[in-house]
Amino acid sequence: MTACKNEAPGTSSAQDDYSDLRSELPNSCTTTDEEILNSYERDQASWANSGRPAALVRPTTVAEIQQAVQVCYERSIPVVTRGAGTGLAGGANALDGCVIISTERMNRIVEINPLERLAVVEPGVVNNDLTHACAAEGLWYPPDPASAEWSTIGGNVATNAGGLCCVKYGVTRDYVLSLQVVTGTGDLVTLGRRTAKGVAGYDLVGLMTGSEGTLGVITEVTLRLRPQQQPQTTVVGYFSSMVDAANAVRAIAESGITPSALELMDQNCLKAIDRWRSMGLSDEAHTILLARTDAEGAAADAEAGEILSCFRTNGSTWAAQSTDQGEADALFSARRLAYPAVERLGNVLTEDVCVPKSQLPRMLDAVESIAAANDTLIATIAHAGDGNLHPLIVTTPGDTGQETRARRAFDQIMAVAIRLGGTITGEHGVGTLKAPGLEHELSTAVMAMHKKIKQALDPRSIMNPGKVLTP
Amino acid sequence: MTACKNEAPGTSSAQDDYSDLRSELPNSCTTTDEEILNSYERDQASWANSGRPAALVRPTTVAEIQQAVQVCYERSIPVVTRGAGTGLAGGANALDGCVIISTERMNRIVEINPLERLAVVEPGVVNNDLTHACAAEGLWYPPDPASAEWSTIGGNVATNAGGLCCVKYGVTRDYVLSLQVVTGTGDLVTLGRRTAKGVAGYDLVGLMTGSEGTLGVITEVTLRLRPQQQPQTTVVGYFSSMVDAANAVRAIAESGITPSALELMDQNCLKAIDRWRSMGLSDEAHTILLARTDAEGAAADAEAGEILSCFRTNGSTWAAQSTDQGEADALFSARRLAYPAVERLGNVLTEDVCVPKSQLPRMLDAVESIAAANDTLIATIAHAGDGNLHPLIVTTPGDTGQETRARRAFDQIMAVAIRLGGTITGEHGVGTLKAPGLEHELSTAVMAMHKKIKQALDPRSIMNPGKVLTP
Repeated sequence: MTACKNEAPGTSSAQDDYSDLRSELPNSCTTTDEEILNSYERDQASWANSGRPAALVRPTTVAEIQQAVQVCYERSIPVVTRGAGTGLAGGANALDGCVIISTERMNRIVEINPLERLAVVEPGVVNNDLTHACAAEGLWYPPDPASAEWSTIGGNVATNAGGLCCVKYGVTRDYVLSLQVVTGTGDLVTLGRRTAKGVAGYDLVGLMTGSEGTLGVITEVTLRLRPQQQPQTTVVGYFSSMVDAANAVRAIAESGITPSALELMDQNCLKAIDRWRSMGLSDEAHTILLARTDAEGAAADAEAGEILSCFRTNGSTWAAQSTDQGEADALFSARRLAYPAVERLGNVLTEDVCVPKSQLPRMLDAVESIAAANDTLIATIAHAGDGNLHPLIVTTPGDTGQETRARRAFDQIMAVAIRLGGTITGEHGVGTLKAPGLEHELSTAVMAMHKKIKQALDPRSIMNPGKVLTP
Repeated sequence: MTACKNEAPGTSSAQDDYSDLRSELPNSCTTTDEEILNSYERDQASWANSGRPAALVRPTTVAEIQQAVQVCYERSIPVVTRGAGTGLAGGANALDGCVIISTERMNRIVEINPLERLAVVEPGVVNNDLTHACAAEGLWYPPDPASAEWSTIGGNVATNAGGLCCVKYGVTRDYVLSLQVVTGTGDLVTLGRRTAKGVAGYDLVGLMTGSEGTLGVITEVTLRLRPQQQPQTTVVGYFSSMVDAANAVRAIAESGITPSALELMDQNCLKAIDRWRSMGLSDEAHTILLARTDAEGAAADAEAGEILSCFRTNGSTWAAQSTDQGEADALFSARRLAYPAVERLGNVLTEDVCVPKSQLPRMLDAVESIAAANDTLIATIAHAGDGNLHPLIVTTPGDTGQETRARRAFDQIMAVAIRLGGTITGEHGVGTLKAPGLEHELSTAVMAMHKKIKQALDPRSIMNPGKVLTP
């Protein structure tokens, strides 16, 4: 069970103390139905522990969220906020006796404003729904996590989600202008601004973004938008090893150009995709790099040519600028399918390390060595252009020997990333899975700063306690 | 005098208590020489109060900074950190009995890394020096405050400085990857990362950036860089009123293009420049808009044409795409000279309001009305494309009637900005000048969050106390 500082009303004796909890929570949107609670207990991190929630609130208004938090504050009951539950670190997993607030019904796009280039949305709006709504206005919300079809903006903000286009366009944090938040003391506050610039006070928007529900519940988000992206040109490269591909990525970074995507899939990913969708990828390549450029006009061809040259001078076995948009889109769809394809092979323990680009060859080499040394299947996908790797460690359910070796490989990969000047998590967040790793990455003094801020803003430790920061 | 929670050792009785202070501070870089202290007492905000420092430390190493802060922590002495002192809100002004830490001697560029596209610098590196060093490597550090020739990266980070290119390339915050900081408890910590992405823990880099020395002393900065900017094309528009110019800015925003600069100078600025440099600008225009585009190839001409069209359809009296680079550069130099030119007319009380682009015409109209109603000279320069205005309120030194009216105009302009959905400060910071305004802009609950964070990270309130947050 995930550690939790609070009483555990899920146990029979404590349940009585909380018997009137349901009646105090917003009536029309609260349930304690066991079967429904079951389906809200976990996110997508199959390795992360979860507890047993006391109640589920599915609000449709900010007032209902505030009411729920205030009740929890009065009673020191943990609050776990949840978007679509696509998280990969256990951040949205239930805690014993907690109240889950699911934002799924708060899915209204409040405003898309072409003049100010911003959107105001409720937290439960699905990423792709916002993308489509923006496109209709000639605008673009870049952050595109692989989960974009399901994950919500609130969850994206809570985890500071990344995606494929980050290599050129940055992460969620770079697009959050303002947040409405219910704090750990039950106050409803507006942080940030609607203006292009602003330095009035501390950057509390940044502090909330990526804090994984440990500092407050996000009730509204104002996002910066960009003009619609230019059409993209795709360049594909096949390599006979991950290290060759990593050297090609390094060469692209050195060339000074900025691709609009630069993705890697290794042999084990390609095999998993082929097993599911029979695309024949693994017969042709050990490792595939997918690059895109959205430069304008003649610059697009120049960039594509430069990428191609970087592929070829670093040992690509085949490389080409795609002339067939359908084919190019199919390859990027395969990239987005890689995670579910690997999930079909067993339980997946998902890494999310990110290293300096110069260290990418060494990091990928280490992943292969660690897989071999631990006799573990690791399938690696990567936002290679960012140095952000997702080695997916696969185990057969119930095979405890494999599980022990997988856990060891997980820790070893994080340790190498830290040693290479990298981080244990590039975009997925800490949740519970990487909370021990966080203590390795950050110094004691920095951990202490985190805990002091948490204590300052969430004095009763009701906001997703035990996530990110272990008690 | 600026309020200060700490004892005031500058007074004769307290001085005795602090008689051994000098000996505890790093010996080789500390002075208590009265004349030298005088010249470190203030920043460029002539209206902001300042106190009398007890000592000045000009360290050359991080260890010396840490030693100084630890001494101040032990004795609960306020620490005021200072870069080049070009601030415009009193943020670097001395407090009675404080220790000033000037980072001017820590001006080493530690690393410029083309592969990782980052630079590591000591805090005292001058903005322009970094720009030139980056250019030699084909790289670019965009934030370009008008003070770039003098202001330091440490000061730029402490105030989250903006500049002319923000309209397309963002502010300092968008470029800070990592900070080394001596905290309010004297700990030396590294925050953030060298990797392109990272979500391990709270965004403490963002929290420090723009905190104006109230949470720690910045001892090293790691900055994200971009590839060298493309050559820029300039478009100039003359207008017969500020509101016409503002409508042109609005039209550009609506057109969907993003200029790489979009600056405004009003009649009073043009007159001040002419009086100094005889450029003849004020005879030709009431208000000038200077726009630039750095789009590539054919796109540059298309964008320039679109900007020109926005000028013409919104009442420009003359507008043209500049074909003479020397002439275009002269106009941008005039823009950078506007502030010192206006300073030659008297004491300047500098506004820094920022409003949504849609409200720019209304805001500029209000500035003119407020100037008239208070019988005050206001010269307005603006990063118009960001909605960020610098109405400069000018008074004759010693004319207390003018000063009273100027102060009233100052408050009225901030009040209108807040009413229009804007902020009191777009890029200069709060310092002491706008600390009362901050309490109008932010809610009581948000102010409380600020104070709790300050208390958590700076428990003895030694870090620039009384700045940003009034006690």
